[in-house]
This record gives sequence, structure tokens and C-alpha cells, in this order.
Amino acid sequence: MGSEHEISKAVVKRLPRYYRYLGDLMNAKVERISSNELSDLMNVTASQIRQDLNNFGGFGQQGYGYNVKYLYHEIGKILGLDKTYAMIIVGGGHLGQAIANYVKFEKRGFSIKGIFDNNPELEGMLVRGIPIRMTSEMPGFLKENELQIAALTLPKTGAEMVVPVLVENGVKAIWNFAHTDLQVPDDVVVENVHLSESLMQLSYDLNHRKGKE
Amino acid sequence: MGSEHEISKAVVKRLPRYYRYLGDLMNAKVERISSNELSDLMNVTASQIRQDLNNFGGFGQQGYGYNVKYLYHEIGKILGLDKTYAMIIVGGGHLGQAIANYVKFEKRGFSIKGIFDNNPELEGMLVRGIPIRMTSEMPGFLKENELQIAALTLPKTGAEMVVPVLVENGVKAIWNFAHTDLQVPDDVVVENVHLSESLMQLSYDLNHRKGKE
Repeated sequence: MGSEHEISKAVVKRLPRYYRYLGDLMNAKVERISSNELSDLMNVTASQIRQDLNNFGGFGQQGYGYNVKYLYHEIGKILGLDKTYAMIIVGGGHLGQAIANYVKFEKRGFSIKGIFDNNPELEGMLVRGIPIRMTSEMPGFLKENELQIAALTLPKTGAEMVVPVLVENGVKAIWNFAHTDLQVPDDVVVENVHLSESLMQLSYDLNHRKGKE
Repeated sequence: MGSEHEISKAVVKRLPRYYRYLGDLMNAKVERISSNELSDLMNVTASQIRQDLNNFGGFGQQGYGYNVKYLYHEIGKILGLDKTYAMIIVGGGHLGQAIANYVKFEKRGFSIKGIFDNNPELEGMLVRGIPIRMTSEMPGFLKENELQIAALTLPKTGAEMVVPVLVENGVKAIWNFAHTDLQVPDDVVVENVHLSESLMQLSYDLNHRKGKE
């Protein structure tokens, strides 16, 4: 399968967006789409689309276009969405609860098994049926359950303290919302969502936008 | 000032991270830092750092290094953090409340003036002293208050409906958490935070990581 060869990081970064559009098309019962139609829809050049999607080989056919469902599933496989993942959330505040409440993640195969916090006031609180447990129970929980992903929705210092415990107990992927760059071994991956950096980007763009008076 | 010339998008994307590290150094009372030291700290090559920071001209001095405070403030100015912004949050659920609770944003000059939702159960609820108002009151609120930024923490369909109202009332920057690409006029900027796409990236990385057994 084409999915096994090396795909450039830039293309990989664009795949989730293709996946989203293809999912919407599928829901709208669209069976085929040409690169030109997809180009209009996604506001990306058709040649970029062809280049990106040719990475996987043989999806597009001259005069037929892409088979939406097939392409959706192939991209899903490349992104690892054909598997399921057991995930915990460390940090049971609003952000942690927001993530625990996203039913969509669950549908995509990211199953939330536990939520941890060290605020005793949150202990036992149910978020979509999942009880918030004390962080002190986390090592035991990790030993009993095989977890792949941890979302860190707690402040910087807490996040840095919790990482070694996660890594020691086999967590291989960290979804990091804390404003810090985590130190992890080579075989552990980190995806950062730094909200304050995103807001700074917006402020930069606001001050440098076209048509600014 | 160097800040007026065109800085490449790639460099701009890296500025918030420099800003974060410089802020931490400032808090730790560090006055100067060499590109080599900054390189070790940030895990970026020293030549990349020199290239990036030379964009602003004259910050670094041979044998002296960078003046942390000066560089912090200059980068802050480039990012527009020397100004204040009035912001509203549309969507008063967990994610909206998480953002409203980030005191750090307020300190950086992003002042949250209102939170809107169309769930009557949330009406009047206070988040960091800010009452949640009904979305129907939003147009009037926008006319009475000069707002620059709107954070959209509501589902896709709601976000798409709300954008024309925001644009009509002078909002020039949208911080979009909804899983959709918003249509806006040329003089309005959008910064997207697509959490599900970030999670897919993590799942890709998890399946393609080094040392994967």
C-alpha cells in the first residue's frame, strides 16, 4: 500500500483537513469529486490537491475524479484512525472537561478511560459518565489499564511533573495543552496545543492584515 | 524600526515561542543570553536563532548576546502585544469557560468583555465575573462596545451563523475553535484551533514514531 512510503510532514499536516472535507462530502452523499471541485471547496489549488493525494497513489482517475468514501478511509488509515486508542485526561478543569465532552473524539476511536486532577473538590465528579479521580491514583490506574494517549490540560509545572509518571507507565503519545515544551524519550510523541501562542498569532495577523485602515 | 519590514510567515510562527522563552528568562532575572545558550534551551540551532532574530535587526551583539528584556519587548511589539484588545467569547460551554478563565490572556492585553450562548440555562452565570448573555443580545452588545476579537467556541453550524453578525459589527479577528473553515471578508483575519485535527496529527505521529516496536 502507498500508505507505507514516507509522506512529507507538510502533506501530513494537511491530511486532517482533507479528511474533514471528505467526511462532510460523504455525509452529503457525494460519491465522487474531481480535484477541481475539491479545489473550489477547500480553497486550495487543484494542482496542490493532486500532488498531495498522489502521495497515496492511484486514488484519482482521469475523468472520474476521486472516490470520496475510498479516499476518506485511506486517509483515515494513514492517520491511524482505523484503530482505537485508550486515553486519559490529566487536568479536570474546564479545558479537560471540554475535551472529555467531545463525543466526536470517542467516535473517531479515542476512548477516554479516566480523568485525573488533584483538586479534592472535583473528586468523583462525572464528566460524560467518567469519574474524576485524584492524580495520586494515576500510577495505579496506568498499571492496571493499557493507555496510549494522555491529554495534559493542567498548568505547566503540573504537566512537567506528570510526564515521567506517564512515560514510565507506557504512555506513548502526549497531547499537551500546557505552555511548556515537554522533555520526553525518543519513542514518545508530543503534539502541542499552545492556546496563548495561537492568540498571539491572531494578534499579529490583526495588526498586519490586508485592508487595515 | 525593523518591525516594519516584511517578516516571513515561517518566522512569525516561531515568534510566540521565542516570546515565551524570553518571558521565562526575564522572570528568572536573566539579563543577557547568547544564541548558543538560547539554542540549548529551545532545542533549535543557534544559526536558526540568529537568522530569525536578525530579522528585527541589531538585537544581538557579538560577545554580549541578546538583551533579554529588550528582545522580549520588541517581539511583543511585533506580535501586537503592546496594545489591548476587547474580545468576546461566543459559546459559553466548557471550552468558552476555559478561555474566559485564562487570567494570562487578560494580562497580555486580551480583555474579555462578554460571553454569549443560546442555552437559557447558562444565562447570567458568572465566569471570572463576566456574565453569560444570550446570543440574541450580541448584536446590540457589539453596537455599544467596540470589539476587535471574537473567540468562537461553539459548534460548526452556530459558528457559521454568527460570523456575518460579528463582521457586520466591526469584529476584525476571529479565533475559531469550530471545525469549519469560516468565510470572511479580506480585512478580517481568522486563526483556527482545530482540536480534532491536532488529535489526528498525534495519532499519525504515534503510528509513525521512531523506535516504534
